[in-house]
Amino acid sequence: MQAPMPGAASTALQAADACSEPRSEGRNTEAPSRAFGCSIIPSRMVPAATLQQEEVGDTSCPVLFIQLNQLLSTPAGLEWREMARWIKFEEKVEDGGERWSAPHIPVTSLHSFFQLRTFLEKGTVLLDLDASSFKEIIDKVLSRQPEEAELQPELRQSLAALLLLQPQHQPTTSLLQVLTQLSLSPCRGKAKNCSEPEAQVSETPLREQLRNRFNKKILPGTEAAHIATGEVEFLEKPFSAFIRLRRGVVLGSLAEVCLPSRFLFILLGPQTKVKACHEVGRAMAMLLMDELFQGVARGAEHREDLIAGMEAFLDEVTVLPPGKWDPSVRIPPPSCLLSRHRRTTTHPPDQQPDGHGDVAAAQDRSSLRHPYPGEELERTGRLFGGLLRDIRRKAPWYGSDFSDALHPQCLSAVLYIYLATVTNAITFGGMLGDATANMQGVLESFLGTAFAGSIFCLFSGQPLTILSSTGPVLVFERLLFSFSQDHSLDYLEFRLWIGLWVAFFGVVLVATEASHLVRYFTRFTEEGFCALISLIFIYDSLKKMLSLADAFPINWQYRLDNVTFYSCVCNLSGPGHSSRGNDTVLPSALASQQAPDAPAGLSRTQCLGQGGHLLGTSCQYVPDVTLISFLLFGGTFLSCTTLKRFRSSRYFPAGVRKLVCDFAIILAILASCAADATLGLETPKLLVPSKLEPTNPARGWIIFPFGVNPWWVCLVSAVPAVLVTILIFMDQQITAVILNRKEYKLRKGAGFHLDLLCVSLLMVVTSATGLPWYVSATVISLAHMESLRKESATSAPGEHPEFLGIREQRLTGLAVFILTGVSIFMAPVLKHIPMPVLYGVFLHMGVAALNSIQLTDRVRLLLMPAKHQPDLIYLRHVPLRRVHLFTIIQLLCLALLWLLKSTAAAILFPVMLLGLVGLRKGLERVFSPHDLVWLDGPVPAAGREAEGTEPGRRKEEKNGEEAELMQRQGPEINISVN
Amino acid sequence: MQAPMPGAASTALQAADACSEPRSEGRNTEAPSRAFGCSIIPSRMVPAATLQQEEVGDTSCPVLFIQLNQLLSTPAGLEWREMARWIKFEEKVEDGGERWSAPHIPVTSLHSFFQLRTFLEKGTVLLDLDASSFKEIIDKVLSRQPEEAELQPELRQSLAALLLLQPQHQPTTSLLQVLTQLSLSPCRGKAKNCSEPEAQVSETPLREQLRNRFNKKILPGTEAAHIATGEVEFLEKPFSAFIRLRRGVVLGSLAEVCLPSRFLFILLGPQTKVKACHEVGRAMAMLLMDELFQGVARGAEHREDLIAGMEAFLDEVTVLPPGKWDPSVRIPPPSCLLSRHRRTTTHPPDQQPDGHGDVAAAQDRSSLRHPYPGEELERTGRLFGGLLRDIRRKAPWYGSDFSDALHPQCLSAVLYIYLATVTNAITFGGMLGDATANMQGVLESFLGTAFAGSIFCLFSGQPLTILSSTGPVLVFERLLFSFSQDHSLDYLEFRLWIGLWVAFFGVVLVATEASHLVRYFTRFTEEGFCALISLIFIYDSLKKMLSLADAFPINWQYRLDNVTFYSCVCNLSGPGHSSRGNDTVLPSALASQQAPDAPAGLSRTQCLGQGGHLLGTSCQYVPDVTLISFLLFGGTFLSCTTLKRFRSSRYFPAGVRKLVCDFAIILAILASCAADATLGLETPKLLVPSKLEPTNPARGWIIFPFGVNPWWVCLVSAVPAVLVTILIFMDQQITAVILNRKEYKLRKGAGFHLDLLCVSLLMVVTSATGLPWYVSATVISLAHMESLRKESATSAPGEHPEFLGIREQRLTGLAVFILTGVSIFMAPVLKHIPMPVLYGVFLHMGVAALNSIQLTDRVRLLLMPAKHQPDLIYLRHVPLRRVHLFTIIQLLCLALLWLLKSTAAAILFPVMLLGLVGLRKGLERVFSPHDLVWLDGPVPAAGREAEGTEPGRRKEEKNGEEAELMQRQGPEINISVN
Repeated sequence: MQAPMPGAASTALQAADACSEPRSEGRNTEAPSRAFGCSIIPSRMVPAATLQQEEVGDTSCPVLFIQLNQLLSTPAGLEWREMARWIKFEEKVEDGGERWSAPHIPVTSLHSFFQLRTFLEKGTVLLDLDASSFKEIIDKVLSRQPEEAELQPELRQSLAALLLLQPQHQPTTSLLQVLTQLSLSPCRGKAKNCSEPEAQVSETPLREQLRNRFNKKILPGTEAAHIATGEVEFLEKPFSAFIRLRRGVVLGSLAEVCLPSRFLFILLGPQTKVKACHEVGRAMAMLLMDELFQGVARGAEHREDLIAGMEAFLDEVTVLPPGKWDPSVRIPPPSCLLSRHRRTTTHPPDQQPDGHGDVAAAQDRSSLRHPYPGEELERTGRLFGGLLRDIRRKAPWYGSDFSDALHPQCLSAVLYIYLATVTNAITFGGMLGDATANMQGVLESFLGTAFAGSIFCLFSGQPLTILSSTGPVLVFERLLFSFSQDHSLDYLEFRLWIGLWVAFFGVVLVATEASHLVRYFTRFTEEGFCALISLIFIYDSLKKMLSLADAFPINWQYRLDNVTFYSCVCNLSGPGHSSRGNDTVLPSALASQQAPDAPAGLSRTQCLGQGGHLLGTSCQYVPDVTLISFLLFGGTFLSCTTLKRFRSSRYFPAGVRKLVCDFAIILAILASCAADATLGLETPKLLVPSKLEPTNPARGWIIFPFGVNPWWVCLVSAVPAVLVTILIFMDQQITAVILNRKEYKLRKGAGFHLDLLCVSLLMVVTSATGLPWYVSATVISLAHMESLRKESATSAPGEHPEFLGIREQRLTGLAVFILTGVSIFMAPVLKHIPMPVLYGVFLHMGVAALNSIQLTDRVRLLLMPAKHQPDLIYLRHVPLRRVHLFTIIQLLCLALLWLLKSTAAAILFPVMLLGLVGLRKGLERVFSPHDLVWLDGPVPAAGREAEGTEPGRRKEEKNGEEAELMQRQGPEINISVN
Repeated sequence: MQAPMPGAASTALQAADACSEPRSEGRNTEAPSRAFGCSIIPSRMVPAATLQQEEVGDTSCPVLFIQLNQLLSTPAGLEWREMARWIKFEEKVEDGGERWSAPHIPVTSLHSFFQLRTFLEKGTVLLDLDASSFKEIIDKVLSRQPEEAELQPELRQSLAALLLLQPQHQPTTSLLQVLTQLSLSPCRGKAKNCSEPEAQVSETPLREQLRNRFNKKILPGTEAAHIATGEVEFLEKPFSAFIRLRRGVVLGSLAEVCLPSRFLFILLGPQTKVKACHEVGRAMAMLLMDELFQGVARGAEHREDLIAGMEAFLDEVTVLPPGKWDPSVRIPPPSCLLSRHRRTTTHPPDQQPDGHGDVAAAQDRSSLRHPYPGEELERTGRLFGGLLRDIRRKAPWYGSDFSDALHPQCLSAVLYIYLATVTNAITFGGMLGDATANMQGVLESFLGTAFAGSIFCLFSGQPLTILSSTGPVLVFERLLFSFSQDHSLDYLEFRLWIGLWVAFFGVVLVATEASHLVRYFTRFTEEGFCALISLIFIYDSLKKMLSLADAFPINWQYRLDNVTFYSCVCNLSGPGHSSRGNDTVLPSALASQQAPDAPAGLSRTQCLGQGGHLLGTSCQYVPDVTLISFLLFGGTFLSCTTLKRFRSSRYFPAGVRKLVCDFAIILAILASCAADATLGLETPKLLVPSKLEPTNPARGWIIFPFGVNPWWVCLVSAVPAVLVTILIFMDQQITAVILNRKEYKLRKGAGFHLDLLCVSLLMVVTSATGLPWYVSATVISLAHMESLRKESATSAPGEHPEFLGIREQRLTGLAVFILTGVSIFMAPVLKHIPMPVLYGVFLHMGVAALNSIQLTDRVRLLLMPAKHQPDLIYLRHVPLRRVHLFTIIQLLCLALLWLLKSTAAAILFPVMLLGLVGLRKGLERVFSPHDLVWLDGPVPAAGREAEGTEPGRRKEEKNGEEAELMQRQGPEINISVN
């Protein structure tokens, strides 16, 4: 079976190798070296070695569109009907369903290939036929039969007549057509065409060919291949012909779209074998779909070349055993295809990562995981050397940073990111106000975001970054505020000094090029960081909700029957009587009797204002508010989660789903606010000043460095400043590494040092004006880049569009922050937002962030029996007990961090995070490097698209192009049977 | 390539055909005709035709366990290590992960098969070797080399030494082992064995072989095949040997389990080709795994037979194109395999349902859909003929109906079904009490269930049926009660007459053998029925919840500041003053001042009892109760849904998950009750009398037929009785058909007429005592059968256990109902259940039932773009617009039903349901029979496992064995890439 390969074919095969990624033409301008020439050069003449050097290719291999027409006998006579089509994957006509199936990987039985080989060996093979019309082709084919298969003249005539019948094309799929046909009669839509079965293949393109929506899926330069199979009564033995045209000829209405045709394969058999013919036709299509065989077919000189190409193809096919696999199962296209390169250089079995492939796979993996933009993080060894290089690198692009923004896509990006930024500003502003007794509130959050963001967009190294308050900083501010309270320090003044010190340390870090230290942060560190912050978010939002029950207590002992005993009256007499207002029912009822001298109509405020006090059983209770708050909280959380998940549902077009998912949080907030406003209960609301003045009236816009605190505070502040510097550095630089990964194909380079400098200098201003501190926010920045993706317009059915890069510019970010600044005047709207809604959003953020880290997956593994565990890549390579050990160590660290956080040493938590880095070093003694590569990885950013340090980083952020390996970890392919 | 098949091999192939389902031995006693003999008869001698007649087979083909050992070079020297094993599917050793992969379909490249063929052609092939130990086999193999491949003596010696090395077996997988090893050193667990690499294959089974938990998966009579592949330095050309032993010999420690060995395949190659050797070994395993090739290999006389068998195998394999499919993807086993029969009689391509296969597939489908127990529903044409036959059929089994229950499985079934029955009794009892002003309450529900159920279990035709209140009856009772109220009739007396008439009509239906009319109920009817009832459930539970807001009004205008203005006092003076108690704040505050003469300390009841009235702003409001009710309602609904879904999660072993899912509703009720009890608010509770007397004190235990209503009511009752009869007949008989489907392999037969008679006669008693009416409940009955499934104990990894039948007996049902009767004394517990919890359960039932019908799937299709639609089988065969038209017609019917239900004619809804049957007839004019076969089907029960007429019928109820076709509609296979 393994026939010795004829020399011609083997060189043809090599020639085919050289015709690389057929989609590269005219688009991948960045990588000219990848666009090898493809070669209709006669393969026999040119040895493979010469071909390799000959990189000045004339044309690369065009994509082939393959259509299979089958001869069917309808009541109205014989008819050609399109049954399937291929570009990269197969689409079948669901004959009963009158529609195209979803694109799927074609499968067929090996038997069909064996039959096909027989036909190629025995049948007509015409290479480089010159013809200008289908009729001419048919005539030539029928006249040039091999001697042993010579046809009778009358047979020839009927065959020609048959082949020239007008084919019926693809079914109706558009919704519009479906709707218009709903009112039609039950008989099939095709009936009208059956009345003219004798129509011949038209020479000019039909109107429906030009209007076919499938044209959108076809790349310019695509050629067509036609396969026609069928059964006819008058044939006694099969008739087959493989034709290659010398030049692409448009064959009129033969195909459903108007393309120059290159290959034709005709197979007509006697009446008995209809399905066999069809399957052989499909096998031919599978062959032609293969890029390597296409190259062979284009270069072949003799039929032996074709057969050898087919043998080479068969040698590579994957085989599924009969009886264990139903061949009618349709396999959906994989998310990533094996690259040509891999196919031709390594042998398929070697790719299987079992046995000794293990180490190789791990190396493969770690090389894939190297995400550093090489040059940007190299040390120069000079003070501010990195910064100078950053400036030198970015300066030439400064002009284009504005001109590149002139694209409509940028407008929608601005709207989307603006809403995300505003949502963030509201939620973080609300939480900050909560944490600092409104020293920084929503208004400060808006102002600060607008100011810091605009400055950063104008001067930073990576203007795609969006600055925002982040979780770690919020947690620190909360701790700092309570520390100040406990030690009777003025919070804002203390904070100003910390900010100044941080700025100083930041500049020092820039000067010493400390950014290259990022490489010591591994996934272990990040996950500790992220998990801790997420847990704090979850814990805080729940704690806040429960504390509402203290602020608005519920009378759990309320009995409907005792309604007459509940009251609350104002008592203006001396406080000596107040002891009577206890909790028992009867005395309070008496109390309301005993205070007839109190003036009527005093509200609670008035009463307390006049020095009175409240007496009665219902005074300390607030009905309904707590419970409605819980309903709002739960509702917001559930609707955030549901709307986010809506993206992966099947309903509505992808655009609608993406929109809903992108605006999930704002929609959830709006819906909950609407519900709250409709019900009208007095729920606790977000505090926003109605005028442009600080939320807390006790502070001004400028913080003075001296005055309230003792003088030595300005020196001591250096200590907490170290902590903040660690936080800011970790949060800022890890995000920067993620944003600048080479998978995003950024052309203008990064600016790690410049970014850090900007953030540090902004600290000075925000500290002096009492605005929140800002660092890069991973989620929003990734969303920003995502909304500026450039993708190839057309792609074959079932194939994902190609990622071309990001629209790198400064204008979208700037516009977003200017809009945010303008939104300060939204205060009258914002004050209607109930706090429980914001807590719900924060709970969602915490849960989503916790779900996105690998640690959570591994904790889940602890609960799963081994046989139900998902086929995760690290489980294939690391023993389960080692995985569990790693998880348990991580959980212990987390528990320790949580314990420390709950003690007085809480404010030191950035140092503890740094301690994780050391602990990770220690792990190298417990785990082998092999295990660590799979579980942790020496560099942080691989797989970071799915997780992160900041609550809210989501799995959906995963960029399709990024790490092939990471993509292959989890994706689950759904196969529908039958 | 399509080599002409040598005669010997082709007959061997046919012989292999005859060796049918290898798992049938000794188990499938019901179908002796299927257990063909398998035949180690020399194939050359016996033509296939004779073989077919020769059904007195000696042994059927044993199952083969195939193990692949690979030679690895470890630091301690060469070592054989088990790398994979096969029974029906492949399990690989994850070398890094030190565990078995999940079972999957093996794939390999065709290339490996080509290589394997070469080895079979050129290498040693020893058929029917006589040997008693592995050493002897090796010696014989090495001495009987073909001449051209003669080995050097020293080579022979080293090969023998190599092959006799002790192999290392499978990795540790149990959790216990994982946990004990967690504390070990990081070096691999296998290291200890490496110290003795020179250990030879032991002749006696090792202790670990006997203790291997894999033994459980191996059927008695299984034989072993060994494949050994490896690379060695000293070989220059590959050495291969295929050995078949004349008799199965236990070869000591060669395999991981102790089995007689039949086949061995040894392949050793030079150092360069390690992976190739391994892949060839896998190809050999795939061959041997194939039942047809196994037959060939057992019967082969020459190496040509083997090669021909392999060609036949290859002819059938499915081919995946290279570059489109990553061969390292693991495909999980399908839920159902192609049967041998299908494989050998039809050619694989014919199974694809496209093109003209469409009609055939539809016919195939409708034949598969014929679910009627044939004989039971045939008409005899005599009065009570069917009933007599039922009695005659069931009488002989009556003794065994009790003796068959002596199995521990029955105990757990009793507990499970008891809890389900009690849950149903509580929920339906609560709802009935609600609907009928407690004329029938929880106590009546318990009593009635216990009584009717026990009687039915003792005398019915199908004692596996569980009687219960059902949705349709509940809806009717609600309508009947409000009709009685509106027309001032005594409800219970009216109902008694209806019940008597229904019993009469029921007996008439039994006499006329009306049960065979079931065939006019199609899926269309059922879905209308089910959807309407589900919607009523959802609507009612929501309406009930909203009406709580009327019963316990919330003061939405409550302002914290005005707390002093809210009060409620008792006013004992004349009602003339009451007009002052209006809603404005101030006057009521005054009111509390103006009524100082009212006696203090009167509760609401006391006040109203003394003829006073309540004055004040807080009188008409009840704080918190409504909102906590909503929280309980939502919580119960969500926890029911979540716990039900828990079954398909990956966490915890299947047993735990099944338990949680089975008890989901009772768990949800218990949790919500616990929460309610902890909080202590005065939520509305279930009303249960504390003594054994009717829930409503206005009625007695016996209903008198005359007295309150006019005399003519007893005649007029015949009209509503017709309606009830329709309801009962539809509900009872459709359920009976589902339960008696032949897929359940029931041996004792059904009793449709007898069942209907029992139900009718029970109506008399329950009407006379004012207990609820009972019919068969599909969900609980199916759960009952499910809990009594008999399954085969062992099955190959990845294969589903075989379904053997149901433990048919009367004892479990009887025990359940006796326990239910005893539970009447649970009243003190039941009265703590809050009504909102029950409403939550009902909402869940409604939603679950709505989700389970195909109509809902089709409504979802309306919202999905065509390309995102799931690959449903009817979408492949019916044009989308026809599907949509069918859905829209159904929705219109539903809307019409709903409209009618909301009018005064509501009580007629059973007739409207019957109208659906007529409408379905009319649809035959709009849709072609082809479309209707796919969308509706002429017979109702196919696919009914997934849906039903009664709320609560769930998808999980789907029985794995039932309709292969239905199974193939939806199942989604997850493939993890890499």
